[in-house]
Amino acid sequence: MNKSIFYHAGCPVCITAEHDIVNLIGSDNIEIIHLGNDPSKIKSAELAGVQSVPALLTPNGNVLHINFGASIADVKG
Amino acid sequence: MNKSIFYHAGCPVCITAEHDIVNLIGSDNIEIIHLGNDPSKIKSAELAGVQSVPALLTPNGNVLHINFGASIADVKG
Repeated sequence: MNKSIFYHAGCPVCITAEHDIVNLIGSDNIEIIHLGNDPSKIKSAELAGVQSVPALLTPNGNVLHINFGASIADVKG
Repeated sequence: MNKSIFYHAGCPVCITAEHDIVNLIGSDNIEIIHLGNDPSKIKSAELAGVQSVPALLTPNGNVLHINFGASIADVKG
């Protein structure tokens, strides 16, 4: 199985969700991308369908938007 | 580790999210509750902090709201 990708931007709700997701799925099965620290990844996140963070891109290409932390537009700003 | 509980109400986004979550976490580690079919569970879901479905209640008591399918108020109606 390919890894899932967890996109976040460092907001408190993101960090809480990150810990929960990593605990549930296992850190070996997930790649964490901080869009605030690594804005070069924003474009690929958008193309994958990420509309807000935190979000989990699953191996089959679905995007699960978790809570509503910050819109992609806010992360860009 | 205690099981996670995945709350949903049968909406299309719920079903997609359910499949993804079960694939990621494993069906042995999760209990699925359909609030539309089992409205007696709505009260405990609300007390756990579920505000919309689909939502994942993690073993440590956090609620991850996934996408925004239907508000609890809608499920009640």
